[in-house]
Amino acid sequence: MPRPQRAPGGFPVVGIIGGGQLARMCAGPATELGITLSVLAESETAAAALAVPSAPVGAHDDLEAVRDFAAGCDVVTFDHEHVPADVLAALVADGVAVHPRPEALRHAQDKLVMRRALTDAGVPCPRWAAVADAAQVDAFAAEVGWPLVAKTPTGGYDGKGVLVAAGPEDLTDWLATAQEKGEQLLLEERVPFVRELAALVARSPSGQAAAWPVVETVQTDGVCTEVIAPAPDLGEDAAVAATEVALEIAAALAVTGVLAVELFELADGSVVVNELAMRPHNSGHWSMDGAVTGQFEQHLRAVLDLPLGSPRPRAPWTVMGNVLGGHHDDLYPAYRHVMARDPEAKVHLYGKGVRPGRKIGHVNVSGTELADLRERARHAAGYIEGAITQ
Amino acid sequence: MPRPQRAPGGFPVVGIIGGGQLARMCAGPATELGITLSVLAESETAAAALAVPSAPVGAHDDLEAVRDFAAGCDVVTFDHEHVPADVLAALVADGVAVHPRPEALRHAQDKLVMRRALTDAGVPCPRWAAVADAAQVDAFAAEVGWPLVAKTPTGGYDGKGVLVAAGPEDLTDWLATAQEKGEQLLLEERVPFVRELAALVARSPSGQAAAWPVVETVQTDGVCTEVIAPAPDLGEDAAVAATEVALEIAAALAVTGVLAVELFELADGSVVVNELAMRPHNSGHWSMDGAVTGQFEQHLRAVLDLPLGSPRPRAPWTVMGNVLGGHHDDLYPAYRHVMARDPEAKVHLYGKGVRPGRKIGHVNVSGTELADLRERARHAAGYIEGAITQ
Repeated sequence: MPRPQRAPGGFPVVGIIGGGQLARMCAGPATELGITLSVLAESETAAAALAVPSAPVGAHDDLEAVRDFAAGCDVVTFDHEHVPADVLAALVADGVAVHPRPEALRHAQDKLVMRRALTDAGVPCPRWAAVADAAQVDAFAAEVGWPLVAKTPTGGYDGKGVLVAAGPEDLTDWLATAQEKGEQLLLEERVPFVRELAALVARSPSGQAAAWPVVETVQTDGVCTEVIAPAPDLGEDAAVAATEVALEIAAALAVTGVLAVELFELADGSVVVNELAMRPHNSGHWSMDGAVTGQFEQHLRAVLDLPLGSPRPRAPWTVMGNVLGGHHDDLYPAYRHVMARDPEAKVHLYGKGVRPGRKIGHVNVSGTELADLRERARHAAGYIEGAITQ
Repeated sequence: MPRPQRAPGGFPVVGIIGGGQLARMCAGPATELGITLSVLAESETAAAALAVPSAPVGAHDDLEAVRDFAAGCDVVTFDHEHVPADVLAALVADGVAVHPRPEALRHAQDKLVMRRALTDAGVPCPRWAAVADAAQVDAFAAEVGWPLVAKTPTGGYDGKGVLVAAGPEDLTDWLATAQEKGEQLLLEERVPFVRELAALVARSPSGQAAAWPVVETVQTDGVCTEVIAPAPDLGEDAAVAATEVALEIAAALAVTGVLAVELFELADGSVVVNELAMRPHNSGHWSMDGAVTGQFEQHLRAVLDLPLGSPRPRAPWTVMGNVLGGHHDDLYPAYRHVMARDPEAKVHLYGKGVRPGRKIGHVNVSGTELADLRERARHAAGYIEGAITQ
C-alpha cells in the first residue's frame, strides 16, 4: 500500500478507517492544520477519496489491509464504528496509536456494552434489559409496558436496527434472528421524551476536554434532518446537566476524540442517554461554520493529543439542515439557485451519488433570528434535494 | 496527464495553474462546495499537491503541459501571475474558460500595463513614468524629486523587483538590465503614505461583485506580516471610496475572480493604488475565519460564475499574522505550544519547508479587543517561526 506523502516540519499523519463524509470533512481542517490525512477507503470514488490525496482502497474488516494502512500513520481513527474487535486488537498489538481506543470504542459498537457501562457509572438511561427469549421479553414488558423499543446491539445506524414493538408478536422475527446468531436483543422502555438533544464533547488522551453548546436535533423517519445550536429554551441548569453527562461519559469510558451523546429530554427537564457515537457526528455539523473550532478540526486535534480549540459559538444561533438524496441527481443547478437565494448559506456537499434518503450534504446558516434561520436552512436543504421547487 | 476523478451530480472541475499555498487553501472550500480541484503543480511536494488528489506535475510555461492539464478542467484559474501570454492565448484558442481572462490578467502581470489602464480609467495612482534611459529618469526625477521608486514591470513579488532609488546612480544597473532585455522600467513617485490598505473584491463573469471590508496591511522588509480587518480608524467615507476604487478597477478591467487592490493612504485620507493581484491574496487570509465567505471559497464561486457568498465579517475585528520561515524547521512543537496558549487562534500552515523569510503559514484571531488580538496574532506567528521563544 503506498505511503502518504509527509509534509516537512514534523507534522504527523492521521489515518482514518472508512472513507465516508465524516472522513471527507476532516480534509479541509487537516490541510489548514498542516497535518497529512490518509484514508482507508471503500472505493476509489468514496466521499473522502475524492478529497484526500492518500486514500488507498481497502476493507475495514480486512486485517492485513488495515495493518498495512496503519503502518503509514502516526494515529489511526475512524469514520464509523464497524472495525471488528480482532482487527483493533491487532493494531494495538502492533503498537499503533488508535483513538478512540478499542476499549472505549466498544461502547459505541455494542449498545448492550454501552447500557451496562453507563448504568454502572450512574448515568441516566431508559430502563433496559438484555433478552434472549420470549419469557425475558414478557418480564421486561411487565415492568415498562408496551410499546417498547428493541435494538440490535451492533451494526445499526440512522434508525436501522431499531424497532418500536407494540406487542410480543412484533419481536418474534428479531428474537429468532438473535437466537440463531447466539446474541441478545436490547430492550428499552419507550421514553416519553419531549424532544431530542445532543451533547457533543471532545477529549484528548491527556484528559483535556471541551464541550460545544447542547443542541436540539430533529429526526425524520429516524434520520437527523435539522440541528439547532444551541437548543432553544434550554435552561442553563439543564444545559449544564446535559454537558456534565457527556463529560462524565467521556471520562468514565476514557473516550479520545469527539464523543456525541444523543439525549432524550423529558417533561421535567431531565435527560436520559439514547445513543453514543465516538467520532464526529451529524449533530455537530453546525460547528463547521458556527463555532470557532469545528468538530472535524477538534477530532483531529484530540486524537493527536494536541491542545483542543475553543468550542465557542460564532453567532447566537446556527441551524443545520441535512440534504438527503431525493428524486433528481443533477444537484448543481439546484445548488446554484440556493446560493443565489441566500448568500449566507454555507452549503456542504459530500461528493456522493444520489439515493433516496441518503445523506448527501448539509447547509448551515448562522445569525440572530432563529425562525428565519430555520426557514432558510430548511429551504436550502429542501431545494437541493428537490423536495422544494420554488 | 491523468484526468481528475469527477464527483457525481454535475459538479465541475476547477483547474489551478501553480501549486503554492493559494491553490492549497482552495482545497478545503472546494471539498465543502462539492467541487473537484485539479492543480498543475511545480512538484509532487508542492504545497497544494500535498492537499489535492489531482495534482499532476508540470510547468506553468510549458504550453503542452498546460493545454493537456486544461483539457481535464471546466474552468482554469491561477495560483500566481506568471503564466506567459502565449500559453494563455493558446488556452483561449482551445476554448478553455480561463478566469481571470488573459486580457484582464495582463494588468496584474505587467505594472506598466496596469498603470496605463488605471490612469486611463481615472483611478488615482502615484505619478509614474515608463523610462528606458538616464535622460528619461532625470526628467521624471525633476518632476517628483528623489528618492523615487523603480519597479521591474514583470515578475516581482513580495518586495522583489522594487527599488527605492536615492539618486540616478542607484538605477544604473537596473537600467542596463532593462536595456539588454529591450524593456522599460516603471518609475513612481515615492508616495508619502501614512499607512497601507487593501481593498479585496470578487467579481464573476456575470458581473456580480462582492467586497470585503477594507483592511490595513503591515509590511516588514517588503513582506506582509500583519493584516487588520477592518482597517482601524478608517472613516466610512474613506472606506467607501477605497471600496469603490476596487470595484471600479474590477469592472473597468473585467476582472473575474478575486481582485486585491493594494492602496496607500495619504495624510488627507485619500488613497492611491499601489499594486493589483488577480487571485486570492495575503491581505485576504483573514477572511478564511473572519468572514462568512472566505476569499478562497469566493474565488472558486467567482471563476465558476456561481452566485457570490456574503463577505460579511463574523466578528468586529480579525487580525492575521503571517508565519515566516525562521531559524528552526521543527514547527510541530511550537505550534502545539501556540494552540495551548490560545485556544481561539486559527493556525494555517502551508506544508512548506522552512527557509528564512518564506511565507509558511498564518494565524487568524477574531474578537472585540483589537490590541489584544494584535498581541495574540503576533505572538502566535512569532512563536511558530521561532522569533519569540516564551
